[in-house]
Amino acid sequence: MSDKAYMLFEEEQKQRGIDLEHVKAKLKQFKIETPSWGYGDSGTRFKVFQKVGVPRTPFEKLEDAAVVHRLTGLCPSVAIHIPWDHVDDYGKLKSHAESLGLSIGAVNPNLFQDDDYMLGSVTNSDPSIRRKATDHLLECVDIAKETGSRDLSLWFADGTNYPGQGDIRQRKHWMLEALTEMYRAMTADMRMLIEYKAFEPAFYHTDIADWGMAYNYAQKLGPQAEVLVDTGHHLPGANIEHIVAYLIDEKRLGGFHFNSYKYADDDLIVGSMNPYELFLIFYQIVLAANDADESIRDTVEKIAFMIDQSHNIEQKIPAMIRSVLNVQTQYAKALLINHEEVAEAAERGDVLGAEDAVRRAFEFDVTPLLHAVREEKGLPIDPMKAYQASNYATEILARGKGGASW
Amino acid sequence: MSDKAYMLFEEEQKQRGIDLEHVKAKLKQFKIETPSWGYGDSGTRFKVFQKVGVPRTPFEKLEDAAVVHRLTGLCPSVAIHIPWDHVDDYGKLKSHAESLGLSIGAVNPNLFQDDDYMLGSVTNSDPSIRRKATDHLLECVDIAKETGSRDLSLWFADGTNYPGQGDIRQRKHWMLEALTEMYRAMTADMRMLIEYKAFEPAFYHTDIADWGMAYNYAQKLGPQAEVLVDTGHHLPGANIEHIVAYLIDEKRLGGFHFNSYKYADDDLIVGSMNPYELFLIFYQIVLAANDADESIRDTVEKIAFMIDQSHNIEQKIPAMIRSVLNVQTQYAKALLINHEEVAEAAERGDVLGAEDAVRRAFEFDVTPLLHAVREEKGLPIDPMKAYQASNYATEILARGKGGASW
Amino acid sequence: MSDKAYMLFEEEQKQRGIDLEHVKAKLKQFKIETPSWGYGDSGTRFKVFQKVGVPRTPFEKLEDAAVVHRLTGLCPSVAIHIPWDHVDDYGKLKSHAESLGLSIGAVNPNLFQDDDYMLGSVTNSDPSIRRKATDHLLECVDIAKETGSRDLSLWFADGTNYPGQGDIRQRKHWMLEALTEMYRAMTADMRMLIEYKAFEPAFYHTDIADWGMAYNYAQKLGPQAEVLVDTGHHLPGANIEHIVAYLIDEKRLGGFHFNSYKYADDDLIVGSMNPYELFLIFYQIVLAANDADESIRDTVEKIAFMIDQSHNIEQKIPAMIRSVLNVQTQYAKALLINHEEVAEAAERGDVLGAEDAVRRAFEFDVTPLLHAVREEKGLPIDPMKAYQASNYATEILARGKGGASW
Amino acid sequence: MSDKAYMLFEEEQKQRGIDLEHVKAKLKQFKIETPSWGYGDSGTRFKVFQKVGVPRTPFEKLEDAAVVHRLTGLCPSVAIHIPWDHVDDYGKLKSHAESLGLSIGAVNPNLFQDDDYMLGSVTNSDPSIRRKATDHLLECVDIAKETGSRDLSLWFADGTNYPGQGDIRQRKHWMLEALTEMYRAMTADMRMLIEYKAFEPAFYHTDIADWGMAYNYAQKLGPQAEVLVDTGHHLPGANIEHIVAYLIDEKRLGGFHFNSYKYADDDLIVGSMNPYELFLIFYQIVLAANDADESIRDTVEKIAFMIDQSHNIEQKIPAMIRSVLNVQTQYAKALLINHEEVAEAAERGDVLGAEDAVRRAFEFDVTPLLHAVREEKGLPIDPMKAYQASNYATEILARGKGGASW
Repeated sequence: MSDKAYMLFEEEQKQRGIDLEHVKAKLKQFKIETPSWGYGDSGTRFKVFQKVGVPRTPFEKLEDAAVVHRLTGLCPSVAIHIPWDHVDDYGKLKSHAESLGLSIGAVNPNLFQDDDYMLGSVTNSDPSIRRKATDHLLECVDIAKETGSRDLSLWFADGTNYPGQGDIRQRKHWMLEALTEMYRAMTADMRMLIEYKAFEPAFYHTDIADWGMAYNYAQKLGPQAEVLVDTGHHLPGANIEHIVAYLIDEKRLGGFHFNSYKYADDDLIVGSMNPYELFLIFYQIVLAANDADESIRDTVEKIAFMIDQSHNIEQKIPAMIRSVLNVQTQYAKALLINHEEVAEAAERGDVLGAEDAVRRAFEFDVTPLLHAVREEKGLPIDPMKAYQASNYATEILARGKGGASW
Repeated sequence: MSDKAYMLFEEEQKQRGIDLEHVKAKLKQFKIETPSWGYGDSGTRFKVFQKVGVPRTPFEKLEDAAVVHRLTGLCPSVAIHIPWDHVDDYGKLKSHAESLGLSIGAVNPNLFQDDDYMLGSVTNSDPSIRRKATDHLLECVDIAKETGSRDLSLWFADGTNYPGQGDIRQRKHWMLEALTEMYRAMTADMRMLIEYKAFEPAFYHTDIADWGMAYNYAQKLGPQAEVLVDTGHHLPGANIEHIVAYLIDEKRLGGFHFNSYKYADDDLIVGSMNPYELFLIFYQIVLAANDADESIRDTVEKIAFMIDQSHNIEQKIPAMIRSVLNVQTQYAKALLINHEEVAEAAERGDVLGAEDAVRRAFEFDVTPLLHAVREEKGLPIDPMKAYQASNYATEILARGKGGASW
Repeated sequence: MSDKAYMLFEEEQKQRGIDLEHVKAKLKQFKIETPSWGYGDSGTRFKVFQKVGVPRTPFEKLEDAAVVHRLTGLCPSVAIHIPWDHVDDYGKLKSHAESLGLSIGAVNPNLFQDDDYMLGSVTNSDPSIRRKATDHLLECVDIAKETGSRDLSLWFADGTNYPGQGDIRQRKHWMLEALTEMYRAMTADMRMLIEYKAFEPAFYHTDIADWGMAYNYAQKLGPQAEVLVDTGHHLPGANIEHIVAYLIDEKRLGGFHFNSYKYADDDLIVGSMNPYELFLIFYQIVLAANDADESIRDTVEKIAFMIDQSHNIEQKIPAMIRSVLNVQTQYAKALLINHEEVAEAAERGDVLGAEDAVRRAFEFDVTPLLHAVREEKGLPIDPMKAYQASNYATEILARGKGGASW
Repeated sequence: MSDKAYMLFEEEQKQRGIDLEHVKAKLKQFKIETPSWGYGDSGTRFKVFQKVGVPRTPFEKLEDAAVVHRLTGLCPSVAIHIPWDHVDDYGKLKSHAESLGLSIGAVNPNLFQDDDYMLGSVTNSDPSIRRKATDHLLECVDIAKETGSRDLSLWFADGTNYPGQGDIRQRKHWMLEALTEMYRAMTADMRMLIEYKAFEPAFYHTDIADWGMAYNYAQKLGPQAEVLVDTGHHLPGANIEHIVAYLIDEKRLGGFHFNSYKYADDDLIVGSMNPYELFLIFYQIVLAANDADESIRDTVEKIAFMIDQSHNIEQKIPAMIRSVLNVQTQYAKALLINHEEVAEAAERGDVLGAEDAVRRAFEFDVTPLLHAVREEKGLPIDPMKAYQASNYATEILARGKGGASW
């Protein structure tokens, strides 16, 4: 049936003026980075359910990530979190990754799990704590050098829970100081990706609370600093695709941390709560990828697509497979938008026609297309079934419970 | 200065038609229950900062609670959480409380920290897990008998993270089954307080998601079942005072879990984010306390005012003192509302006049009034300063770090 | 291509265990009521853009509605709004509808556009205004008798903008009084559908603010009173499908006012902002339609699916066509869910499997299925194109601007 | 009593280290601009209730504004809205203002009530509409010259309701073009205040959706462009005081449009829903007014404090009096914060102490202070009572109903 389905799909898209060979080429190049911490136990403040079979070491996390890549063909790099992924020899970690067909992706400093950071890390009023925090940032630059990572991915939990607890403007200056010092330590091929978050764990104010603040730091730092959009880090109703389009236009969109949410930073599987929103994000990306302006196209080219989720009740590896498949699915759908059709309708003020031209692409079932892409790449047609058919899930049970958790 | 201030205050209130003796009498009777778990370490999913000096046992938690009561005169009872406060002999716990001038307050079952409950406790599709969960509810009824507690305070983390994960209507029936069994086990003087929560830790649907669901269970169960309003468990913008008034009118408002929030269930100190909202809640309560209908007055009389917070960065005992003082402050202000003035303005369609009559009460500084009340009750004028001047904070340091945490 | 596409679709669904003949039968029976006011001008508080060609009379509104029904086969009834659709002879309006192949649907009283209602209609503290408002409710019962309508659809703008402006509990009693009087005037075959809304135009409290309040009134009134869910009337994050499932289980879900939103009550085209949410609502409905309990199935049978939107920038008739097609699309997808597959996965605790079984149905492209249904019913394959190919849009331009607006 | 009250208040503040003479001096200099449109009829999309006595002309609006200023001493300037306040001779309008002791404040272009602007004004894809819109901006610069206004206050309703309706990045460029043209037309002493709004009337995306976008335009334009913060234009939970502090630090906070909200852009009286939030905004302002950096102090000096509300059910003039009094009240409270006390507590990590030092200032009753300030300025002690005692409310009834509305 698969062949018939693809032929029919191809015919249908051809009639719409979509070049499926181009679409397939884009899908074959598409990459999503998975996070080492997504393979370990995590959860909510109420309870972290420990699963049997989670990796015990950074090396085992890479092994799980390699399985995801082998089955999906989408995930050749793995983000690491320091100190969760601290090893004595990062060269060895890099080699291990390479031996598995992977590379080390973004390096993520951790500045929120040390007692010293209770009232802030780089924005702490105690200069010795700021020093310690900044040193950790510098350490991560060094690790990036050793692991061959391009991106330094920065999320700060820094903020306050109550008015008066800290001087908002003073903390802003301290943040800039630390970022500046880190920025200067980076090599010319590195990028600093600055993440923002509206709230949690700080509940009154968060030092980098929205894209505007992250963007402003990036601007002050220089061209190697960009904004990282975590899809779960917004206030209710925020139009994320607008922010994405805006940052692309400013050539400051560095990447994504994908996940999904219904209420707050729920950290559910990307694409599971509002798949249309994910599609609309990719609509902006695909539109910009075709821009007349080369610098816009370049910006899109360099976007780091990364997963950042906290699977509390799901099986880890299948949850990661589902996540990257969901991203791939919405990207594929966005590639089916006929941008001329949208533009023409918009141009003549046909609101319903323009909307229809976008939504119609979302309504296609891209299963035949994705099957074809996988087949052509020599991948299993259905990565999830392939995983379940493999012995890997059983083998890792030998690891036992309470492996490396964050 | 205190005397002058109070005299001036009294004169001012007299001119407004407020009977301060009545106000003081109400304030002297006012009680707020503190939770045993509020004295231990808790926090966010990112990090729980462990403090030196937190209690190591349920007995030590009571000792800390007794200090708060001694200084504020407001907190004669302490809620317990099972199994966090499990002891072999609850009679001994009760005696210990009594020896400290306290009683054991609401008993709170815990149905969210056992691995079995990952996909639900009383709504789990596995009947043996539902049985286990219901047995725990019954155990808590027994504990309430042993500790002389009136209230069983029920919060269920039960819910789902994804569509399809559970059958919403089936789970609703299972919830009712468990509650019914517990209800029948209660003695005639006990109350079941049913708490609701919009989200977290379940991020797609929560089995008891809002007051309407909690209320509906209470109605189906009988007159000893009532609704517990946790001020942090609502969607953005919810008018909590409306819900409070509504439940009072239905004679189903059993009590409060006080805390405050700006974004989600932030669990900050009650009254610290939007003190006016807390005042407006008490406005509805005070208004109903003066109702012509005795059954309404009775409902108000029985409301359990309880703190439920998670202090992550604050000193535990001072945070609790601050919390109960904030509640007392807003209650005091609400007692200054001239309800006739409000009603007359409302009656003549004077929107601004009615609003002013309410807000004006909020704008008074009730410090002289509270000082007078404390003085007359033989309490320290400033409980926070009295705590800081005491040796208690120093003495408990000997307990060390990592005491009993939840 | 259409035939090939349908055959392939049929084969695919057969393999999944879906009986397409049953699905098509359900789709052929499906009905969506359109509102007379959806054909006129409306908009935001900032500006109502008047369109050329909008109907000038209730009779012309019916003519537009008939076009939508003729093209989609979905909309045999039209809701009316009194006094916007006031005519001297409602029998004539009914006959006109019938001559167009339509019937008059729900009767909607209007209690918010008279100066008298500034501070409330049935909850106004002035008894003569309450009387006037209640009389209007009774008038609408009479109109329903004359027009052969089954449903009385009630939305109250009643509420307050400031604390103190009205007595929340007193207003609650007045609301019940008015509803009771109306309820008693209804004939045995009528239903009262009680709508709720979180906010707007009242910005402090709304008298019927959520499903719980609407449900509670329905319960107090009797079996002919049910809840009307307007999808745009919730606080951010509300799980509407949970409410839907809950109300079905209580046999009190009377109907829907469909529209969509991203921020507040945005009144956009249903299914345009988050189509997955609409699908998930239908998932609950379809699941309940197959319930073992006959009374649950009956409840589902009687649900009134209605559109309620405010098209500000869209062409009116095409916007209505798009709306009903979006609803039909998501209903069709929900009919493709294999409930046994979901239940089995859920039963074995396979969270990802259960989620996948639901989401997979959403990902199908139901175009071939809907084409087949339309063909078999003798309808145009593509109702939107058929409308654009017709002369109707041009003909109505003769009506000019500023027709009947609300 | 007033004297006694003030003496006591003074004594109390002195003990806290607060210099009341300084506080009074600041209060005497404080100015709030009222909007001409706040004196006319406005409301919600459901109904605008027309009041008897609203002004019929821009000249009468100024007369009402003059009454507010005469009674409060706070409102020497009046913002105008073009074309609502279009007059043939702006010099005459200016003179009329001056004869009433007023000046013309910010000039507000209106680019949302013309049929041409249905799909955008300066971001419309039709170049002739963009031209028309930009011309209106230039016209407003001319009006500002004629009226002697310093500020051009820009709010754009521009945005889209559906994906695809417009090209987000293209519209961004068009926005910049229009702003640039206007900026160049301004004289050296003028300021462009750029307002942002999360949503409404556009419900998918708004071209200037948040402070970050407004700020970025301001940066690109030059030093005379600044951000205007409308307190009602944010997503739920937004920390407005953080944004305020941030913009001050960047020297780009141009002014405020004050109002309050509980749900969306409710446009209620400022300070009526969450007075503490208003206080916390002023806390940031007062803190910055004492900054060591002169350019920060300068920024604060130039902030335009303006009211922007839509009174639907309130009497217009009393609503305006209440609004400016509420702002004055919270400013007065913020002036009572002992910043050293806050800073010292924060420095030693005393979260509760720092919070208390801020909140304590809020809890003072500043009535005696405001009475003293008014007395010293020769103003009525209670402006609201003075208004009610005057004949003005009765006199304006002669204007009849349906005066100038927007």
